Amino acid sequence: MSHVLALDLGGTKLSSALFNAEGEMLLPRRTELNGRVGEQVGELIATEVAERMAACVSLGLSLDSIGIAVPGSCNPTDGTVWAPNIPGWDKYPLRDLLRKAGNGLPVVVDDDRACSILGERWQGNAKDVANAIFLTVGTGIGAGILMNDVVLRGAHGTAGSLGWMGLGVDHQEVYAAVGDLEYHASGTGIANAARRQVEASPDYQGMLRGIQLSGQLTASDVFAAYHTGDAIAVQVLDLCVKYWGVMVANLVSLFDPEVILFGGGVFGPANSLLPMIREEARKWAQPLSFPFVKIDGSALGPQAVLYGAGSAALHEKTKS
Amino acid sequence: MSHVLALDLGGTKLSSALFNAEGEMLLPRRTELNGRVGEQVGELIATEVAERMAACVSLGLSLDSIGIAVPGSCNPTDGTVWAPNIPGWDKYPLRDLLRKAGNGLPVVVDDDRACSILGERWQGNAKDVANAIFLTVGTGIGAGILMNDVVLRGAHGTAGSLGWMGLGVDHQEVYAAVGDLEYHASGTGIANAARRQVEASPDYQGMLRGIQLSGQLTASDVFAAYHTGDAIAVQVLDLCVKYWGVMVANLVSLFDPEVILFGGGVFGPANSLLPMIREEARKWAQPLSFPFVKIDGSALGPQAVLYGAGSAALHEKTKS
Repeated sequence: MSHVLALDLGGTKLSSALFNAEGEMLLPRRTELNGRVGEQVGELIATEVAERMAACVSLGLSLDSIGIAVPGSCNPTDGTVWAPNIPGWDKYPLRDLLRKAGNGLPVVVDDDRACSILGERWQGNAKDVANAIFLTVGTGIGAGILMNDVVLRGAHGTAGSLGWMGLGVDHQEVYAAVGDLEYHASGTGIANAARRQVEASPDYQGMLRGIQLSGQLTASDVFAAYHTGDAIAVQVLDLCVKYWGVMVANLVSLFDPEVILFGGGVFGPANSLLPMIREEARKWAQPLSFPFVKIDGSALGPQAVLYGAGSAALHEKTKS
Repeated sequence: MSHVLALDLGGTKLSSALFNAEGEMLLPRRTELNGRVGEQVGELIATEVAERMAACVSLGLSLDSIGIAVPGSCNPTDGTVWAPNIPGWDKYPLRDLLRKAGNGLPVVVDDDRACSILGERWQGNAKDVANAIFLTVGTGIGAGILMNDVVLRGAHGTAGSLGWMGLGVDHQEVYAAVGDLEYHASGTGIANAARRQVEASPDYQGMLRGIQLSGQLTASDVFAAYHTGDAIAVQVLDLCVKYWGVMVANLVSLFDPEVILFGGGVFGPANSLLPMIREEARKWAQPLSFPFVKIDGSALGPQAVLYGAGSAALHEKTKS
């Protein structure tokens, strides 16, 4: 039976798996980048491809194509990649590398925003949906946007840069690095807001104080504290629900999608907040379409992007 | 030489013209609705079509198709129209009416947001551009969004409902009717903000005071006052520039377009503010793509939608 090879390159790891045309995943595995940069990351990918191809041979599987998702932007013309979290990957010639490593198999390079929604479209919560948005809320915030069954990419491949959404009219200097929405409502933003609040609350003796003193306060800690009713965690996440609510509303008003899916490291733990996010969004959104939008968590979780790379590879195979 | 018939139905008027394939406009004319509602508007359209067809015959022009833009949403399946500003137009069977009036000529019904960008794509400031947005800022605020040379419509035809964009996290009751952005930064919003400000400023003796007393203060008055340095006009429009700036930034971050065009009754007079809007947007937008976006006024002005209806008719003709 024929398969495709999917790879998901992140800022700190490389995941890979085989998929058949029915979307069944075979032999998933994950390798940490362990500080590799530039050409070393390319070598790791080439090795991974060689090993997976050898595995296919020994298992008697035929391999039809290779798809890879990258944390950045791809130039569809020359197949080069810009990935800000991988030092040295500025116009990195990834497609050429993969073609060589794959012995001439059809190859597709796509960005992780696009792959996230392609994965859910193929085997997740956007099956058979032509207009759907996948929100990744983790270290940063980004959106994979599918309209009329085509992923929106924009003129320079940066469509869906949702973290840069401004939700106010008075700009602050702190937004310059990551954008207003990402500053306030990403995983990083949640941890930073809780840290600032602990520092500004000398009388606060809750559980976040001790974690703060250890220097390791993360968004996960804020969620754990939230479920105990911790005052700072409640304050921080109540504000995030407002940000996520108006974010959802703006996506509904602009794109009129059928489905909006939340994924990334924060959803996960924030999935229980989805009903509150929906109620917040309802206040702001274009009212005709809003009642019809399904707002849900990701079905594939951290593997949505890997599924999407598989879906892209399968489509590339059928093209060639 | 063969032509198409284009119609642009607004809340208060019906415009029409003939176009040839090169985009030359022939015999434009405008009829006021004069309070017509429901079926009366349909009869006006049927009469207009009959008269334009008769004119074509007497001029020896062949007519290939008919396109009409409507101020609302169209159901592409059954050709019915929902137009909130035309009483009685809820699921109004406009396509059937046009087919009958047009003696079976190919007919296309589209919304004015879509037609605005199609017009500029055909004969205006978005010629040969595949990713472009037309902003209509007038009584309300809406966007016609072209991505990969296809107009975004969404699942229910309400994509581009830009006036509903929320630009804050604390919802106010006054946004419920028209949306946050439209409340603050439409023509209606500008006039209302100036009125509120005059009422709240007992010491203000500027030109807007007298107009306010006459009960007829409009956005045009605010622009006229702005150019004389009137304190209230400057305050109101400085705030609008902030709203328009973050609006542009959010469109750049989400869609990554090549061109953003401002039209509608307010641009016009607000075109001189475009450099300020661009500087405001620069603070907020995804920084990689922003430098490449062209921000400009409409080339076709109030006729962009009529051109778009012509472009849609031409495309419909080539399909059939």
